Amino acid sequence: MIAFSEEEGVRFGVPFIGSRAVAGRFDPALLALKDAEGITLEAAIRDYGLDPAKIGDAELDENAAAVLEIHIEQGPVLEAEDLSVAAVTDIVGQTRMSLRFAGHANHAGTTPMHLRHDALAGAAEWIASVERTARETEGLIATVGKIDVQPNAGNVVPGVAAVSLDLRHSTDTARQAALENLLASACEIADRRGLALESKRLMDQPAVPMDERLTAFLVEAMEANNLPSKRMPSGAGHDAMVMAAKVPTAMLFLRSPGGISHHSDEAVREEDVENVLRVAASFIERLAADLK
Amino acid sequence: MIAFSEEEGVRFGVPFIGSRAVAGRFDPALLALKDAEGITLEAAIRDYGLDPAKIGDAELDENAAAVLEIHIEQGPVLEAEDLSVAAVTDIVGQTRMSLRFAGHANHAGTTPMHLRHDALAGAAEWIASVERTARETEGLIATVGKIDVQPNAGNVVPGVAAVSLDLRHSTDTARQAALENLLASACEIADRRGLALESKRLMDQPAVPMDERLTAFLVEAMEANNLPSKRMPSGAGHDAMVMAAKVPTAMLFLRSPGGISHHSDEAVREEDVENVLRVAASFIERLAADLK
Repeated sequence: MIAFSEEEGVRFGVPFIGSRAVAGRFDPALLALKDAEGITLEAAIRDYGLDPAKIGDAELDENAAAVLEIHIEQGPVLEAEDLSVAAVTDIVGQTRMSLRFAGHANHAGTTPMHLRHDALAGAAEWIASVERTARETEGLIATVGKIDVQPNAGNVVPGVAAVSLDLRHSTDTARQAALENLLASACEIADRRGLALESKRLMDQPAVPMDERLTAFLVEAMEANNLPSKRMPSGAGHDAMVMAAKVPTAMLFLRSPGGISHHSDEAVREEDVENVLRVAASFIERLAADLK
Repeated sequence: MIAFSEEEGVRFGVPFIGSRAVAGRFDPALLALKDAEGITLEAAIRDYGLDPAKIGDAELDENAAAVLEIHIEQGPVLEAEDLSVAAVTDIVGQTRMSLRFAGHANHAGTTPMHLRHDALAGAAEWIASVERTARETEGLIATVGKIDVQPNAGNVVPGVAAVSLDLRHSTDTARQAALENLLASACEIADRRGLALESKRLMDQPAVPMDERLTAFLVEAMEANNLPSKRMPSGAGHDAMVMAAKVPTAMLFLRSPGGISHHSDEAVREEDVENVLRVAASFIERLAADLK
């Protein structure tokens, strides 16, 4: 049993610090990272009574048969379908971009519609296209979460609109194809409206599939406990992503009441914990039988 | 000849201070207004060597035959049509509103598209509808110049999107009809997407038509000087709006190079000044002949 530290990377700004060590992928340069109070990762490990020089010893044995991560869903899917648990098929790949539409800021009263180059109107048309593409593409999740407009005044035609894009899919080729479509759509919108367009790729992270054999064992274990054999991708990153590079890895989700996560109202139902533990026990028995 | 002070209201926050006095509509309570340095309007008038108690004397004689205001267009229309001057037909009416779409802020990775209540996606759909309505409605000018999203983070589905609306038309009934359509469209979008909608009317200012007889004289004066008889509404407010309540009023625009206004690059062409003065002189002659 392992409870990984620093999966979120909230304290030192870098995620998966614990699982990197167990997967043998810990970069010693991380020890110099400082938290908000100026305490280094190295000092924090020492204060806890451990020796940073021995991090290498945390690496999992070459012969480890499997890793099973149990995690709360952090989303609304299981609650919406009234299910306790799900087997995770993949951890989705992710692209983050920023796009900037630039037109001409002008007087909102004296500039007729046909002489405008309204950056916000262009961005709004693209936001609609992002949502439409995601709804029409199986498994695609796309979000424009951030928009900053200049000068952002009620009586001025917007001169600049900068927006974010967060794009996720469990298949990398599907994510890349959607990205190309959305960038082409942004170019077409900008050209037609006489806007300048700049885009910047901030992050590109491939999808990580869970081990198929182990996931099949998980589904058997769910059925053995009379639970529906729900399979779903994970839209968020997890330690299982790091472990999968080292050891065959599977992952179980349990329901998030209200879909709430990263909030003081985040909770878990007792019956779901009971179910997930039963499934995990059956999984271990199934795996042990297979290894004999 | 009158050059009105404080048309914009930049110093004391209230526009048309000079023309209110000449139109006999000056409210003495305005004297207590303070500028950014704490100087009252009353003190500023005294410092200039005038007596605030005599503001009433500025009121125009009951028998004044006409007011003609000459103003730079502050927009791109005359430049786009390569014209020097235009007769202003109306000063458009204006409605300003704020609308607030509220949904649920959620994890951008774990919330599938069909379980979202994305406030920005709703606002973007409405912004497109505002632009489409304005393009399809003769003479309507509609602007969403301001948008504020919460939490405005790239990896969070937007929970709240607050937008502005600035709506102008030279006919009040057309403006009201467009406003009703746009509010109905916002309600329909919010209902369909499971968003809460709040709206607030911040300003409602009726259109002010210029005097028809005087405007006809202006057009005659333009033709007499071999200038195209361009007529257009004014999308911005002007002193003529205040004067029209007291005296028959007409207004002449001259071209804004580059459509630039309220900026240190605002300029005027000598040939346009010459043309506008010729037209004004012909207008005065035409009016004098009419009054005989």
